[in-house]
Amino acid sequence: MSTVITNIGQLVTFDPAEPDRPIRTDAALVIEDGLVAWVGDAASAPATDELIDADGAAVIPGFVDSHSHLVFAGDRVAEFEARMTGRPYTAGGIRTTVAATRAASDDELRERLARLVAQSRAQGTTTLEIKSGYGLSLVDEERTLRLAREVTDETTFLGAHVVPAEFADVREAYVDLVCGDMLAACAPHARWVDVFIDSGAFTVDEARRILTAGRDAGLGLRVHAGQLDADGGVALAVELDAASVDHCTHLTDVDVDALAASARGGAGTVATLLPLVEYSTKQPYPDARRLLDAGVAVALASDCNPGSNFSSSMPLAVALAVRELGMTPLDALAAASRGGARALRRTDVGHLGVGARADVVILDAPDYRYLAYRPGVPLVRTVIAAGTALAHTERAH
Amino acid sequence: MSTVITNIGQLVTFDPAEPDRPIRTDAALVIEDGLVAWVGDAASAPATDELIDADGAAVIPGFVDSHSHLVFAGDRVAEFEARMTGRPYTAGGIRTTVAATRAASDDELRERLARLVAQSRAQGTTTLEIKSGYGLSLVDEERTLRLAREVTDETTFLGAHVVPAEFADVREAYVDLVCGDMLAACAPHARWVDVFIDSGAFTVDEARRILTAGRDAGLGLRVHAGQLDADGGVALAVELDAASVDHCTHLTDVDVDALAASARGGAGTVATLLPLVEYSTKQPYPDARRLLDAGVAVALASDCNPGSNFSSSMPLAVALAVRELGMTPLDALAAASRGGARALRRTDVGHLGVGARADVVILDAPDYRYLAYRPGVPLVRTVIAAGTALAHTERAH
Repeated sequence: MSTVITNIGQLVTFDPAEPDRPIRTDAALVIEDGLVAWVGDAASAPATDELIDADGAAVIPGFVDSHSHLVFAGDRVAEFEARMTGRPYTAGGIRTTVAATRAASDDELRERLARLVAQSRAQGTTTLEIKSGYGLSLVDEERTLRLAREVTDETTFLGAHVVPAEFADVREAYVDLVCGDMLAACAPHARWVDVFIDSGAFTVDEARRILTAGRDAGLGLRVHAGQLDADGGVALAVELDAASVDHCTHLTDVDVDALAASARGGAGTVATLLPLVEYSTKQPYPDARRLLDAGVAVALASDCNPGSNFSSSMPLAVALAVRELGMTPLDALAAASRGGARALRRTDVGHLGVGARADVVILDAPDYRYLAYRPGVPLVRTVIAAGTALAHTERAH
Repeated sequence: MSTVITNIGQLVTFDPAEPDRPIRTDAALVIEDGLVAWVGDAASAPATDELIDADGAAVIPGFVDSHSHLVFAGDRVAEFEARMTGRPYTAGGIRTTVAATRAASDDELRERLARLVAQSRAQGTTTLEIKSGYGLSLVDEERTLRLAREVTDETTFLGAHVVPAEFADVREAYVDLVCGDMLAACAPHARWVDVFIDSGAFTVDEARRILTAGRDAGLGLRVHAGQLDADGGVALAVELDAASVDHCTHLTDVDVDALAASARGGAGTVATLLPLVEYSTKQPYPDARRLLDAGVAVALASDCNPGSNFSSSMPLAVALAVRELGMTPLDALAAASRGGARALRRTDVGHLGVGARADVVILDAPDYRYLAYRPGVPLVRTVIAAGTALAHTERAH
């Protein structure tokens, strides 16, 4: 079965084989066996079994959202409202979600997760990383990862999200548990291990222990760092060759240099920016321009979670990156696709070069820049994942 | 034919008969002959021909978007990109759109308009005001208004958008034209007349002439004022009993007092805030809290147009109002529905009290506050306009 997408207004390939030609016009794209089989001038497209008429629209690679927390119960909308309206709110925080998640059945969590994943896909996300981190017990971390693994291969063990209340006075014992039995139970369901480095979560030394143990268990490394201050997490991430260090809102010049050197040296450590979090917490945005100008590899991800940001909208992340982070629309789109793929050390997604997985989004717009130009408007018309149409919205008429 | 909507998680009615009870729980709503026929406890709902199961979702009145400019050709995405990335761009501006619009055929304009209207509706807008203002000649203002009238009753003659290039040296002659033959040609297609008061557009004195002529031709009055500075337009709008003064980003204390006095006196002049414009132009946002605390009637609208903001997303306008304008989620939702209705001097829309037009939006969320809590996520699941389902997105699973 082969399918050609034709009548494409603008084809964004981000083909690594053609780094100076990220965008093609008058192009067609052929999908075969779930992969991109051919890209070239529409006039010379090969014959195929099926045809999709893009009706002059822009076609882009599916988004790679390399940072989300989608397995949880409850919501924190009251906490959100209090934060936005400047009212005090003391009952909130991650522990609220932990309590609700522990109390929920597998089926409840599975149903909520499926809904959130479907919403992400309908917004153009075709590769989705999902973290644990609302279980914080051996049993609940294991089961939330197991549920996440039912919907994606990109699962991350984040037992080190915060120290749970019952370990507040014996935090070292919690780190022991995360590095020991909890890791052993979770590793079979995970590709990655992650640690939240923050004054309210884990120190750099604790993170080093946990990440090293995760690496020894065969997991790749990811780090949350630099959300509220330059906390030393970036240096650790680069030192341990983590695939990504996420947030990066507060960085020293030494951090930026380390990330840039890492990017020059190979796969390296990607700086993953999460502007929806700054939107939703009213914090200053990270400076993507500083990173790009220094040669750092940059990704954009949603960080969809019930607390600091409950948006899963990669289109809005792109729009905010353009308005607030100093990215051009092309920078932002690349960071949301190729950047995310690099942050997951994937070369098969995040672009539409020949051989890539056929993860294709047809926009309800003639130009990819409309994602920034028309914020909030649902511009994802058709989502094709591995060659299969997942979501289709009829062109509005 | 009667239909009951049941299993509603939260019903926002904004029923003017129950001002202290904007939200009901355990409620059902019955639609008959395109109107809201009954609202009450689900347990005592009357028998109906049909049933819509809201599946625990929040149900809200359709948005009333009282300010848009949707009849035009071309786009200004390059101008947008230049503005966002801080590059100079001299070829932009309203006149670019005027040239493209004049060059387009009726059918081209009609097709583009239909698509933009369908996108608005799919985002929950069930009452939509549309202005002319990209024709700026008698023929082109008349035909753009005629096309707008094909899709909405809420049409506004905005010949006084800017002075067109060919009248740059004889602006008084253009004002004469607007007040004379152009108004005569356009009035049959319009409900309202509007003037853009701004240092780059029209003065208060010119606006007074145009608005007075419009009123004499039987049109209601609207004004653009206070976008870039406190320009005296608010005082004029209140003096002439305009239904709405739009932008209101820059207001003096005297302006605020005048608007508040006007609101106390009856229908009055509504302050319509357009936060998507400040988003898209990177200007400081208006202060809705100041207006609400003073007793001013406030509306939120999109101002969707190809230049200063091309988003038609009322959900994002609500979200920005909460993040940036000092509104609570309930303030913002009310401004986007009842506020918009008041700005159009309508009592039949913008709420779900008995007798209202059955313009109903079922969200993909249990709580209306998710519109602010989940920015960018398409949360409009079902749109019912005058009792007829217009757009339906299956609940994501």
